[in-house]
Amino acid sequence: MTAADSFLSKWADIAALGSAAAVLSWDQETKMPSKGQAARGHALSVLAGMHHDQLTDPGLADTIAAAADAAGGDPTLAAQVEAARRDVVRASAIPGDLARRMAEVKSRALGSWQQAKADADFGAFAPVLSEVIALTLEQADALVDAGIAEKPYDALLDAYEPGATEAQLAELLGDLRAELSPLVKAVADSGVMVDESPARGAFPDAAQLSLGRTVAGALGYDFDAGRLDASAHPFTSSFGPGDVRITWRSERDDFRPGLFGIMHEAGHAMYEQGLPGDLARTPLGEAVSLGIHESQSRLWENQVGRSRPFWEWALPLFHEAFPESSAVTVDSLFPALHTIKPSLIRVEADEATYNLHIVARFEIERRIMAGAVDVNDLPELWSDTYDELLGVRPTSVSDGVLQDIHWAMGAIGYFPTYTLGNLVAAQLFDAATDAIDDLPGRIAAGDFEPLLDWLRKNVHQHGRRLSADELVEHATGAPLSSEPFLAHLRTTAREVYDI
Amino acid sequence: MTAADSFLSKWADIAALGSAAAVLSWDQETKMPSKGQAARGHALSVLAGMHHDQLTDPGLADTIAAAADAAGGDPTLAAQVEAARRDVVRASAIPGDLARRMAEVKSRALGSWQQAKADADFGAFAPVLSEVIALTLEQADALVDAGIAEKPYDALLDAYEPGATEAQLAELLGDLRAELSPLVKAVADSGVMVDESPARGAFPDAAQLSLGRTVAGALGYDFDAGRLDASAHPFTSSFGPGDVRITWRSERDDFRPGLFGIMHEAGHAMYEQGLPGDLARTPLGEAVSLGIHESQSRLWENQVGRSRPFWEWALPLFHEAFPESSAVTVDSLFPALHTIKPSLIRVEADEATYNLHIVARFEIERRIMAGAVDVNDLPELWSDTYDELLGVRPTSVSDGVLQDIHWAMGAIGYFPTYTLGNLVAAQLFDAATDAIDDLPGRIAAGDFEPLLDWLRKNVHQHGRRLSADELVEHATGAPLSSEPFLAHLRTTAREVYDI
Repeated sequence: MTAADSFLSKWADIAALGSAAAVLSWDQETKMPSKGQAARGHALSVLAGMHHDQLTDPGLADTIAAAADAAGGDPTLAAQVEAARRDVVRASAIPGDLARRMAEVKSRALGSWQQAKADADFGAFAPVLSEVIALTLEQADALVDAGIAEKPYDALLDAYEPGATEAQLAELLGDLRAELSPLVKAVADSGVMVDESPARGAFPDAAQLSLGRTVAGALGYDFDAGRLDASAHPFTSSFGPGDVRITWRSERDDFRPGLFGIMHEAGHAMYEQGLPGDLARTPLGEAVSLGIHESQSRLWENQVGRSRPFWEWALPLFHEAFPESSAVTVDSLFPALHTIKPSLIRVEADEATYNLHIVARFEIERRIMAGAVDVNDLPELWSDTYDELLGVRPTSVSDGVLQDIHWAMGAIGYFPTYTLGNLVAAQLFDAATDAIDDLPGRIAAGDFEPLLDWLRKNVHQHGRRLSADELVEHATGAPLSSEPFLAHLRTTAREVYDI
Repeated sequence: MTAADSFLSKWADIAALGSAAAVLSWDQETKMPSKGQAARGHALSVLAGMHHDQLTDPGLADTIAAAADAAGGDPTLAAQVEAARRDVVRASAIPGDLARRMAEVKSRALGSWQQAKADADFGAFAPVLSEVIALTLEQADALVDAGIAEKPYDALLDAYEPGATEAQLAELLGDLRAELSPLVKAVADSGVMVDESPARGAFPDAAQLSLGRTVAGALGYDFDAGRLDASAHPFTSSFGPGDVRITWRSERDDFRPGLFGIMHEAGHAMYEQGLPGDLARTPLGEAVSLGIHESQSRLWENQVGRSRPFWEWALPLFHEAFPESSAVTVDSLFPALHTIKPSLIRVEADEATYNLHIVARFEIERRIMAGAVDVNDLPELWSDTYDELLGVRPTSVSDGVLQDIHWAMGAIGYFPTYTLGNLVAAQLFDAATDAIDDLPGRIAAGDFEPLLDWLRKNVHQHGRRLSADELVEHATGAPLSSEPFLAHLRTTAREVYDI
């Protein structure tokens, strides 16, 4: 066995442990009976511990070093080695005991958060959230000590968006906030009230699911390499390019969360299904960042799914699925897909105000990481921040600080990737529109293949070979900018709100 | 941490690996999309390798030794140590290289068997079956060398039925064969043709599933600690007492495979759900043997499910589920639940002749293990054995020597546990009937709790604290005998066939 084979074979085994844990987590969210929780939490913490042990085993470091020596003029192998080293440094920075405590606390926090949200009782969740935050701070300090980043919050951001920093995000999100505030105000001042009734009605679950399956399949989601199940919150889970599963949830009186949720997750999943097969279970065979990941979901959900051409194709399917909505037209529906209206719940927010929800979380996380927040004050801080940014205050913590699962999972630093995804999606879609002959016409004909092919070639096939910044520049010819996204918003806002 | 805690904590982590592998296998059989196969096979082999590495790690042996020293007057801890040592000796007996070759050959053999069965082509399977047998013999020799048993076949039997030997089984199965042959002949000579039409008709899947769920829940299967899914072959999979899942398959024109399959798997599952919670993930917190396991499935399937009292309760549910069968009565159905008729396929066989299928396999396995069979002669040996025992000869190897998956999996020594289960089920049910006030009346009233409680107390709660033999004697006051089972058969045969 060559040094490269030995390195890649070890890596594949470690990846298999991660994949096994992903299967257990997917099952936990979709299939597991309630009494399985305790044993599942233990099994996941054991797998996480073993994954960590293997990634930080000195034998692996030796194998990587041997492969590095052998890389010579092989740029792919050299890149594999570099990506592996990055992962090993990050994993090694976290002591095994801390990793195990983190896994155990997260498992408890998840259950506690669910209950607290159902009961609208932040006090019940606060103690375990304090534990999660304390361990996350400990983790961030360890990452800084290992040289991952200079500041604790940057070290966390780097886990989701390699290379991103608080300073860069503060600037980008600051710019966006500066542009979005007047836009949202202009919309409010326009006096236009969007008629959302075309999106409302009675939408039976079975018909929603059937339409969602048809649409996901038409976009290019491969059901022979995935499946679609119900869950409390939609998510995508990948066990390798041959098994990438999506979930959904529905609202009976509004088809939008169900359908756009499925298109969103299908976008994530097509990225995973399109990762290069020959790099599967290698350090490079993964998504490059969560921002790029989110760009894939948002592009299919927003740039495609809320467009006129898409609905020219989808409307007959929509009528067939929901005969009671037979009076709905593309023109009558379009405004209801582009409302701009401040609201309390991030996952229900429109394309524009969504990013203000992210700004709110980013501002709160910065303060948490600076040690400037008492956990018990979070509900009040949340309300004040929403008031300032969006002009709304939650009446219940369930619609406020308890709405998201992320902090219960210790995922501080994750939220900004959602907005990065929105920006990248708009910029990629503009580039694809330039590159593809009559993309709107192809979409209106239900032919999504040219777009998926373009994404396969410009995004998916790279895996981690390019950094997120490199990928954006390579695919679009320009560095990441908020301008394509804002232009997209201005165009639809002009049409819908006459501003 | 005390020596005992350290030992049990290590063991729990190893058990979690096994549990994780079980989740992946369950998912593979019930949910996984087709393109997930390759990565899943790799993940499972990685988990199996790690499980083996951990079980044979010298550090574990040291921990067990330290716990043994500390056991002193603690009989439970001493029993934990003994059970753990047994598992470690068995795992350590197989050299890593042999385990790897075995895994590789089994994986090839499974694919080859499926194809050969579909093509009715034994010749295509024979070469890899020879390899499986050769490696199984090598494995058995290694187990004998490690002191697991004195003879190779005994060493294999011991994996499924600890302590069982060929000599004991030869006697028990010989007795059974001597009694069953005249019984089956008397049935054939009776001239009675059972009317099976009450069990036949049109049984929609959804109604079968709904009835099966109702019945399983009524017996005591806890759906909050399990779930019921479809699969190609019914099975039970446990991830701990809080998550024990069952599967089923249906036939549209015969309700029996579906309903009795669910009752069978629910019986297995209630055993796992009833294992002592305080021993979960310890060496003692497991089922004691496959024979005892099968006794739990068979008891609920046959002693309960095919009884008049059960149908006095179940008939209204049956009528509700299948309105077209409203003319079916307990009396008209009863014979169709107790047909005795020689057939070719084990899994479709009746309560009586089933055991002759097992005798056939046992006799063939003994000769294989004695090195007295050329693999190429197996189809002929199979046909001759069936002719002698059951008076039938397969016309195709697919209905003969290729019908079972077991040998392709290297599971020689497994089959006898099925018949042990039948015998134990009858003996336990007699004891429960003696112990419970008016058990038939309770069952006819749909009150299965006294029976389940009796099984919880006399079987489930022991885990591996008692050996299978001890458990039978403890629960029934007598050593295992074929007499209760034969008495049960004679009673129903007398009624159905008037003999």
